[in-house]
Amino acid sequence: MGAHASFTIGMQGAEGGMALERGSPADSAVFVGYRAASGQMVTLPFYKDISNEAERYSKPEEAADKGLTILNESEIQREYAWATDCFAAKGITFKVTTPFCEIPDPATADEASLKFACLPATFLELTLRNDSKEKWEGFFALQGGTPWSPVSQQRAYRGAVTRGRMGFASDSKGVEEFVEFGVEQALERKQRTPSFALGPVAGISFVVDPGASKTVRIILGYFIEGQATFNFSAQYWYTRHFSNIYEVFDYAFEHEAAYLKLAAERDVELAKSGLSDSQQFLIAHATRSYYGSSEWLVDAAGKPLWVINEGEYLMMNTLDLTVDMIFYELKFNPWTVRNVLEQFVSRYQYEDQIFSPEDPSQLLEGGVSFTHDMGVGNHFSPSQYSCYECVGIDRKCFSYMTCEQLTNWVLCAGLYVKETGDDDFLRQHKDLLGQCLQSLLNRDHPDPAQRDGLMSFESSRTKGGGEITTYDSLDHSLGQARRNVYLGGKCWASYLALEMMLGSLGDAERVAEARAAAVRCAETLTESFDESLGFIPAVLDGKNTSAIIPAVEALIYPWKMGMRDLLTENGVFGDFIKMLKQHTTHVLKPGVCLYDDGGWKLSSSADNSWMSKICLNQLVVREILGIHYGEEARADDAHVFWEINGSKFQACSDQFASGQPIGSLYYPRIVTNILWLDSSAMKSDAKAPVYTDAKCSV
Amino acid sequence: MGAHASFTIGMQGAEGGMALERGSPADSAVFVGYRAASGQMVTLPFYKDISNEAERYSKPEEAADKGLTILNESEIQREYAWATDCFAAKGITFKVTTPFCEIPDPATADEASLKFACLPATFLELTLRNDSKEKWEGFFALQGGTPWSPVSQQRAYRGAVTRGRMGFASDSKGVEEFVEFGVEQALERKQRTPSFALGPVAGISFVVDPGASKTVRIILGYFIEGQATFNFSAQYWYTRHFSNIYEVFDYAFEHEAAYLKLAAERDVELAKSGLSDSQQFLIAHATRSYYGSSEWLVDAAGKPLWVINEGEYLMMNTLDLTVDMIFYELKFNPWTVRNVLEQFVSRYQYEDQIFSPEDPSQLLEGGVSFTHDMGVGNHFSPSQYSCYECVGIDRKCFSYMTCEQLTNWVLCAGLYVKETGDDDFLRQHKDLLGQCLQSLLNRDHPDPAQRDGLMSFESSRTKGGGEITTYDSLDHSLGQARRNVYLGGKCWASYLALEMMLGSLGDAERVAEARAAAVRCAETLTESFDESLGFIPAVLDGKNTSAIIPAVEALIYPWKMGMRDLLTENGVFGDFIKMLKQHTTHVLKPGVCLYDDGGWKLSSSADNSWMSKICLNQLVVREILGIHYGEEARADDAHVFWEINGSKFQACSDQFASGQPIGSLYYPRIVTNILWLDSSAMKSDAKAPVYTDAKCSV
Repeated sequence: MGAHASFTIGMQGAEGGMALERGSPADSAVFVGYRAASGQMVTLPFYKDISNEAERYSKPEEAADKGLTILNESEIQREYAWATDCFAAKGITFKVTTPFCEIPDPATADEASLKFACLPATFLELTLRNDSKEKWEGFFALQGGTPWSPVSQQRAYRGAVTRGRMGFASDSKGVEEFVEFGVEQALERKQRTPSFALGPVAGISFVVDPGASKTVRIILGYFIEGQATFNFSAQYWYTRHFSNIYEVFDYAFEHEAAYLKLAAERDVELAKSGLSDSQQFLIAHATRSYYGSSEWLVDAAGKPLWVINEGEYLMMNTLDLTVDMIFYELKFNPWTVRNVLEQFVSRYQYEDQIFSPEDPSQLLEGGVSFTHDMGVGNHFSPSQYSCYECVGIDRKCFSYMTCEQLTNWVLCAGLYVKETGDDDFLRQHKDLLGQCLQSLLNRDHPDPAQRDGLMSFESSRTKGGGEITTYDSLDHSLGQARRNVYLGGKCWASYLALEMMLGSLGDAERVAEARAAAVRCAETLTESFDESLGFIPAVLDGKNTSAIIPAVEALIYPWKMGMRDLLTENGVFGDFIKMLKQHTTHVLKPGVCLYDDGGWKLSSSADNSWMSKICLNQLVVREILGIHYGEEARADDAHVFWEINGSKFQACSDQFASGQPIGSLYYPRIVTNILWLDSSAMKSDAKAPVYTDAKCSV
Repeated sequence: MGAHASFTIGMQGAEGGMALERGSPADSAVFVGYRAASGQMVTLPFYKDISNEAERYSKPEEAADKGLTILNESEIQREYAWATDCFAAKGITFKVTTPFCEIPDPATADEASLKFACLPATFLELTLRNDSKEKWEGFFALQGGTPWSPVSQQRAYRGAVTRGRMGFASDSKGVEEFVEFGVEQALERKQRTPSFALGPVAGISFVVDPGASKTVRIILGYFIEGQATFNFSAQYWYTRHFSNIYEVFDYAFEHEAAYLKLAAERDVELAKSGLSDSQQFLIAHATRSYYGSSEWLVDAAGKPLWVINEGEYLMMNTLDLTVDMIFYELKFNPWTVRNVLEQFVSRYQYEDQIFSPEDPSQLLEGGVSFTHDMGVGNHFSPSQYSCYECVGIDRKCFSYMTCEQLTNWVLCAGLYVKETGDDDFLRQHKDLLGQCLQSLLNRDHPDPAQRDGLMSFESSRTKGGGEITTYDSLDHSLGQARRNVYLGGKCWASYLALEMMLGSLGDAERVAEARAAAVRCAETLTESFDESLGFIPAVLDGKNTSAIIPAVEALIYPWKMGMRDLLTENGVFGDFIKMLKQHTTHVLKPGVCLYDDGGWKLSSSADNSWMSKICLNQLVVREILGIHYGEEARADDAHVFWEINGSKFQACSDQFASGQPIGSLYYPRIVTNILWLDSSAMKSDAKAPVYTDAKCSV
């Protein structure tokens, strides 16, 4: 957790392996298997055939008959639980354990628990069951792009490390280490040369006698020392507790039992959740992708710095992702939410003016907002600027998201305060909350008399362009910010969040103003339902006729802020809720907002659907609106298929067109589905879980 | 110098650019050119067509008609001098300046001169001459694999830096900076967004009015902070003088005139050398490749550490390269030679036993030798071990080079002592020199009565295998160490070097022993001339009939150690010298040791020729043996063709088969040709140099 590190395997015949600070699977190879005494080699399929680098040095020998069996899908059983991933086939069992837990708040936690939480390591277990009559030599090996040094130079373990940054170690008895051009060369060589370091493949090997079983434990370690971020300098948090990768190995071996126990508990927790196999898969997949994108840093002043990278794009703390991933972080470690919100306050808030699209030259009072992100690839952007938002773009990708990011910060603050009761946070940002309210009101209309609750004015930051939403690569149904009902919902929820927070601060005047704005917004939206269409069109410009599921998305905020009385048909917003139910019931149909395979299509007018948002809107539809349309399980199955088939080379992806990933690959945001764990409605179709036990069938 | 950094351009339509710690040209792109107001773009051809990354984010716009002219070979004039490289075409002049000088000895030099020498920077000058009637926008841009941050965040310059490690800056007036998906996108955008950071291309642009000229100066800076080597920790020397890349820019701009003056002096020095165009090219090419592989480090104790990487292979301080590159280092900075020799003494010497190939089981007293190298890719190997040498290999690539490396250390020591008169070095290593003599004698034969001067016993390190020479991927004619006449020559020269050094130390007994051994060796070689073949066969095993040019190679050592009286036909070794002349005259013929194009073929029996060794042996043949066979200029032209045509994608390469590089790409070793500068014989065929002046025709 927080090491921006990953170990990716699973796709057959694909690249994979260990990676650091990368927005995609590693491009190397993982070799797991055995070679029988007769020469027959059997491996799991976690590599692309790599050419023999030895040929670069001298003419090749006559290639020996390889006798290589690469196990295929039908021969491998996989159990993909929340914190363990186990492959079993033909005498080989290979288990990857990635434990996770609450990350303790550095402001209050003891050093021991911080050290436990930040360990940059993955735990592997390789078991070979030799039921043949020949001796086997088992192996685990990795291909690297930089040289390997034997771990035995530094410790009693066997394994290899490259550039002090990545490596593996085993403390199991009888294990030998090697560096070679390939596994076959290593095993064929009668005499080993431990100091040989020119090959790209490093591994360990061990003998398994006929009839015997042997289990080898392996730690994967990651370590980046020194400056990790630029323009605002920070190091990885784990460097406070570990001086180098060898200390990571030491600690991981010493505390292995505790980590494995933790992982087993997580597996059981999900397995017994009552969610279906497909739902469980999506949660387990999202969780790995989230942690693989996380950076727990410490700045030059010794303060913690939390950064989530935007998957393949590597944008840092993208605020429209923060507002989706907040449900996960509030469950596990709310301090990271405050940390990110306050990074925005101190370095990435700005003030703008606004204009009406009818007269871009006349600039009016705008207000405060926040940048889209804080930088990219560990390069922090200049203060008050994202790496993403560009001037002069009218409602297309890379334009400003001023209004949406304002709602995102406000909603995150509201959710955080509700979850933690952190009065200090409220008091610290009292003035800012008032400014947020005013800024949101101004973006509706600077003239109070002309407000209708929706965003209608553009930021001067666009320099005459037009703002967009987080759905940046969609058509105007979701991509355009102005008078968008998705964003309208978020404005409504933001007013409610501000009402709550300003209420806690005793600011009665602004409380009333916020409530009035929320009512105004809901009324406008409710009135905009188009009876002839049967739904509320996505953009209230009098022309748009797209149907979008995320019209209902913002209901999640008051629901999570405990305002459930506001979400009933008999409550203050009863008409609004009734309208949204009618809308949803209409659009959740094939040809409107459902694909043929049952998967959800966020907009009727665009073939571009985001998994994170689907998961979030599923929760809203089923849990909050109480709508069951009968095809929920089919949708989940389709979404699993999108991930495991469509996105088979990129692990967990967010953005799909007809089930094929078209962007937002290897993405952290899908953890919106953590909401399902606490939702009884999401479990109504749940089948009996297959994972009745967290144990891997060894 | 010493930054293991490179900026590679020249090949058309190829990847290139800035690189750090890489054994090949960068895999990015360099964009240099201008766009006329009408939209027509003209660029130098230093990039492969890169796909537009913007499409990953959103659907592409209709692609504008590009109107792109990529200049081709026939339109570009190039002047490739010793320290400058200038391209001129159609109004564009682009000059790359890579100044170099003596690197002062850190033990005695002042801080200012050390700082000047270690600056990790390259100097560029881009001039546009707009003789059209339209306004031009000129540009220089680089593609990067990691994000760019604008230099203007940190300094008044314009440019961009990635991860604090690489970047460019201009202090010229009127220059703007950009980060974009491509140069065209940057120039097309009316409004720039300086904080945009998602594109892979960063650059600067500037306006050139019709009829005007504009020259822009650009610094390329490199910087790796913190730990640079592993297992034995060291940082780059420049980190003692510069805290970050911005300080590199500051200093480079401040001292630019001095660096350009230095480069101009170097250009004149080579241009006025009297060497031919082809010879000058080969020296200029080799020099760049050498410095691009160099690492000037400082260890944890504050001591300097000199490392030359083995080109593409990245092996560190490969000793059989050290002995070739020593002529360059002794000319410019002899302290680096002592530094490397003493790294071998303190960490990479070892003791072995020896055996006769007829009875590998009987181990006899061997002696001291040195490892092939010190590690790979900044990973130092364990003490006493190279990353290369493997056990159990009989006279093939990756076997031990025990005997040759012993001669290499001794020869380097002799050359170093002769050049510097460093008595302290001699005294420090007095015992070791005696051990070297004994070790060399033992490898001939442990029984003094049975010695004949040649290596006949194998190292126990091979565990029953057989040693090889630096010509590791050649057939036995040069690859086998035992009874090889190439290695025999080196043994002979080593005895002479030991005689000289032990003489200076007053060890009369060993002096006599060394001389006797040299005489014995020369006599054996002389007697082995095969009248029926017309030459001395490469391996004196009674079977081999290969003819090799490097039979004469070792003459360079006594010649450079000032023992020229030993190299005459009337001297002590007169018969040996006469034999070698006869040998050489015979083998320098087409079909024997000449290719059809006139290039040199080191062995008659293998199509595998090393440029560094060709250059060295050319000097021996022409300067020492005084042989002119009339085709010298044709050979030089062929060797240039091998580099610029055969090795066009890999810059300066060493190992060729029929003019095509087959290994040892991007290699430092070719600086053996520095010997030509001081050789009148090498200039006998010299044409009038074209570079009469170091100025680039702007």
